[in-house]
Amino acid sequence: MALDIRTSELKEPVDVAEYLFRRLHEVGVRGVHGVPGDYNLVALDYVPKTGLNWVGNVNELNAGYAADGYARIKGISAVVTTFGVGELSLLNAIAGAYSEFVPIVHIVGTPSTLSQKDGMLLHHTLGNGNFEVFSEMSKNISCAMAKLNDPHEAATLIDNAIRECWVQSRPVYITLPTDMVQKKVEGERLKKPLDLDHPPNQSEKEDYVVDVVLKYLHAAKNPVILVDACAQRHRVLDEVHALIEKSNLPTFVAPMGKGAVDETLPNYGGVYAGDGSNEGVRDRVESSDLILSIGAIKSDFNTAGFTYRISQLSTIDFHSDYVRVKYSEYPGVRMQGVLKKVVAKMGKLNVQPGPTASNNIAHEDKGMSNNEVISHDWLWPRVGQWLQPDDIVITETGTANFGIWETKFPKGVSALSQVLWGSIGYSVGACQGAALAAKETGNRRTILFVGDGSFELTAQEVSTMIRQGLKPIIFLINNEGYTIERYIHGFDAPYNDIAQWNYTDLIPTFGGTPDNSKTYRVKTKQEAEDLFNDGEFAAAGKLQFVELFMPKEDAPKALKLTAKASAENNAKQ
Amino acid sequence: MALDIRTSELKEPVDVAEYLFRRLHEVGVRGVHGVPGDYNLVALDYVPKTGLNWVGNVNELNAGYAADGYARIKGISAVVTTFGVGELSLLNAIAGAYSEFVPIVHIVGTPSTLSQKDGMLLHHTLGNGNFEVFSEMSKNISCAMAKLNDPHEAATLIDNAIRECWVQSRPVYITLPTDMVQKKVEGERLKKPLDLDHPPNQSEKEDYVVDVVLKYLHAAKNPVILVDACAQRHRVLDEVHALIEKSNLPTFVAPMGKGAVDETLPNYGGVYAGDGSNEGVRDRVESSDLILSIGAIKSDFNTAGFTYRISQLSTIDFHSDYVRVKYSEYPGVRMQGVLKKVVAKMGKLNVQPGPTASNNIAHEDKGMSNNEVISHDWLWPRVGQWLQPDDIVITETGTANFGIWETKFPKGVSALSQVLWGSIGYSVGACQGAALAAKETGNRRTILFVGDGSFELTAQEVSTMIRQGLKPIIFLINNEGYTIERYIHGFDAPYNDIAQWNYTDLIPTFGGTPDNSKTYRVKTKQEAEDLFNDGEFAAAGKLQFVELFMPKEDAPKALKLTAKASAENNAKQ
Repeated sequence: MALDIRTSELKEPVDVAEYLFRRLHEVGVRGVHGVPGDYNLVALDYVPKTGLNWVGNVNELNAGYAADGYARIKGISAVVTTFGVGELSLLNAIAGAYSEFVPIVHIVGTPSTLSQKDGMLLHHTLGNGNFEVFSEMSKNISCAMAKLNDPHEAATLIDNAIRECWVQSRPVYITLPTDMVQKKVEGERLKKPLDLDHPPNQSEKEDYVVDVVLKYLHAAKNPVILVDACAQRHRVLDEVHALIEKSNLPTFVAPMGKGAVDETLPNYGGVYAGDGSNEGVRDRVESSDLILSIGAIKSDFNTAGFTYRISQLSTIDFHSDYVRVKYSEYPGVRMQGVLKKVVAKMGKLNVQPGPTASNNIAHEDKGMSNNEVISHDWLWPRVGQWLQPDDIVITETGTANFGIWETKFPKGVSALSQVLWGSIGYSVGACQGAALAAKETGNRRTILFVGDGSFELTAQEVSTMIRQGLKPIIFLINNEGYTIERYIHGFDAPYNDIAQWNYTDLIPTFGGTPDNSKTYRVKTKQEAEDLFNDGEFAAAGKLQFVELFMPKEDAPKALKLTAKASAENNAKQ
Repeated sequence: MALDIRTSELKEPVDVAEYLFRRLHEVGVRGVHGVPGDYNLVALDYVPKTGLNWVGNVNELNAGYAADGYARIKGISAVVTTFGVGELSLLNAIAGAYSEFVPIVHIVGTPSTLSQKDGMLLHHTLGNGNFEVFSEMSKNISCAMAKLNDPHEAATLIDNAIRECWVQSRPVYITLPTDMVQKKVEGERLKKPLDLDHPPNQSEKEDYVVDVVLKYLHAAKNPVILVDACAQRHRVLDEVHALIEKSNLPTFVAPMGKGAVDETLPNYGGVYAGDGSNEGVRDRVESSDLILSIGAIKSDFNTAGFTYRISQLSTIDFHSDYVRVKYSEYPGVRMQGVLKKVVAKMGKLNVQPGPTASNNIAHEDKGMSNNEVISHDWLWPRVGQWLQPDDIVITETGTANFGIWETKFPKGVSALSQVLWGSIGYSVGACQGAALAAKETGNRRTILFVGDGSFELTAQEVSTMIRQGLKPIIFLINNEGYTIERYIHGFDAPYNDIAQWNYTDLIPTFGGTPDNSKTYRVKTKQEAEDLFNDGEFAAAGKLQFVELFMPKEDAPKALKLTAKASAENNAKQ
């Protein structure tokens, strides 16, 4: 049993729950996602008290996805669930955030410390008195755990957990027992903001690495820059842009790095993903004698099925916890300090221009009269023409996640996807979280592309968007089922079909009215063209839901390549 | 790497996936729940080949709940997911099945053994080469694990897992790597059905326990029988009915035992749940000098907040793995054999009659003109009058789960609920599974009572019901949010409100047509009365969805008591 701190010993007593939520407010959280449950209800009373907004998701998995989307825009997020039933429902979302380096503070309301000590046969338990089994399940998908069982250590544990969440850019797990919510902790600590900085690299070591990098960089004949997800997740985009702009080197992104780089820069050349690369990119990257690879995650779907053909002998890898120059490794050296100094000390480089990214639609796909059907080859460059600066674009695992490789973004666009974790349904929840973040931070448009199969998993989160007054533009690709799976195995198998819904009717069913929402059904290129040219649609003044009909057989080239590679890998003996 | 078995060494070679599904067919599975994913697609090809029906749920959590509902009717079920993203999404459902003793075979399609050995950076992984982390998460919520990494042991592991699932009546976890699906195993084994029987109790020990039980039973002045969930889960209902009918003792059920006993028997007396008991039951049970307690799970929600007032000194507990007479424990003695012999050897008992259960509506709630609003006090006995023999009744955590205590069932009714695990949203998935099981086993009506808050978590599974041609009757209680939580804390707090949907519109949106479905909106007792008297409605010829409006402040008495006890326990210092 935890001992009470005598309130008289505290200079500024605040309740544990208040302390926790004030710290979250301090690091930028405003909307708190989650689902109420009896073990977290009293804690939720502190959400409005601390200036936060309770979202109230429809279910926990959706809440987890939403927290992921919110964190990718705001830098960090929080989600509250209840013991057992609640927390287990979003493990998939938390594992995804762990996998993809997204900082989510997961707070679980648990039975009181007394009940746990007595091993009471409570609801939401396995009935065996084991109150640790659920936290054990979160252990390997959290970068820190904080069990607030004792007011003496609660504030320290909270500070540590939030700091680790931010610094490691991964989920943390906090349990808040019902009897701890109103226990007092030292509020004076809140006057000093959390230190979210990394300690700098050891200076001599860092300088050494910088010199090695510069030696090869200056000697290289046709170096290029390749930016991937961890550049974004580990917050080195300023350094990366300084490097791109000062060096003027041809710059490419991996699919997971889409949105990390200003694609309007003249030296931006497009997506590199081995065989799935944009036109002309593969040759340019693979013929380079030095690739500055920043924050790479070389997963199957990020490399079009492991089709990279670049040698480690011509690669310098920059990571959050090490740098590797060819085969020389420098563990513990963070990329941030190294990149800063490389930019500062960089001399004249050999710059051989690369291809230029564009949203040009290939000639054969342009025709309107000949080919009315909306194709992926037509759609994604056309979307790129329509996007505006600072848009948030979310793409679902499936055709959208591969199609977006062919979209060149305006400046400031954020791209959300789950290329590594790849949980279908993710994007609908993430869209809610991102749209809320967008609302909090100005008026960025939030645009979702999701296939019908994926959409159905988490569809009800659209009702949260309506309830919260959010105004995303949702493109639902109606292509009659799981097209990505068709390309992996069982093209016509019934298990790749889905229940056909009347998708646009969902909006009024979920509470949408003409005042707050509008739906569209778009079956031809001309109809899509009209929509993209519609100023009111583009203004995104309400929630808009577009059912976009596409053939089930059509898929982006990169998806076909990657699916084939997956099928072969699955079958390999 | 697993070595191939030479096909020539096998008398009747069959593929691993075929072997697995044929075993599932043998133990009674016909519908297989789940969601396709690239690591399970090839395995799914074997579902139709082995005479099984692929359900194709909308998401994994729903599939897990559906498998739970199916297993409660058919005795066992199977659900197929994909590695990581799929399997984690239904951990909540699997934990619930573990908690409540429901046998589900959970089959996870995983990356190939080669990919795992090489630690490949595949989609659906944490990106750290750890392929064990997800199976570790299932370990404590599965009674057996079978990793089919080697064809030499695959058949044995499959047989063992399915047997343990059945015998322990809890979930098991089976991984099927993509490269194992078509490996050959010995098919001749299939000629010998799995042995699903328990070994009998050691005879001398069993006789000893039987004598002790009989000594106290014969001496007792006013014994009663109290039946709970584990009587059902551990399959001793035949023995229990023999005991009830031969002894003629007053018989009661705990809430989790609803449906275990034929409630039309003259000595059936109603629900015992401490302070939440049916009228007259508490006094009768608590004044008894000997309670034959069969399969008890004395959890908070099953005892109206631990308000049992029965002494261990007047209790004999019968369990699946031990018997306890007063404080004498007999570990390892299973109740089944003991109950059989007790019934056989039982002499004349002192039978003091108890209360009689009924579906009478209290006088003050009968009035139609005075009180048009549908109340819980009116609804649940009225439902009892309307139910038919062999109906399947599913109630959701919340008002329905407590209200059903006041419903006396016709003969043969099965009741499904999650009183211990209590995961909201469960009942919608469970209804899909139960309705499918009902369709497979004749034409039992499947009737769901679910609150609006809970319904929203898993609403899309109604589309699977439509797609599978199922005909449940769904009563959606529209009471504006989480009423059970309001009674625990935050009666008017915004976090207990939900997004208001136009619920009946969901049915056509999900593909319902007048041919296969019908919706109703019922706001008064008279309208409800008319519906209950409608023969076409009762005939359940299509999927029927009834939106039942009830005040948010109204709740069954037992819920109020239990919620109060929960709030007090949460706050206890």
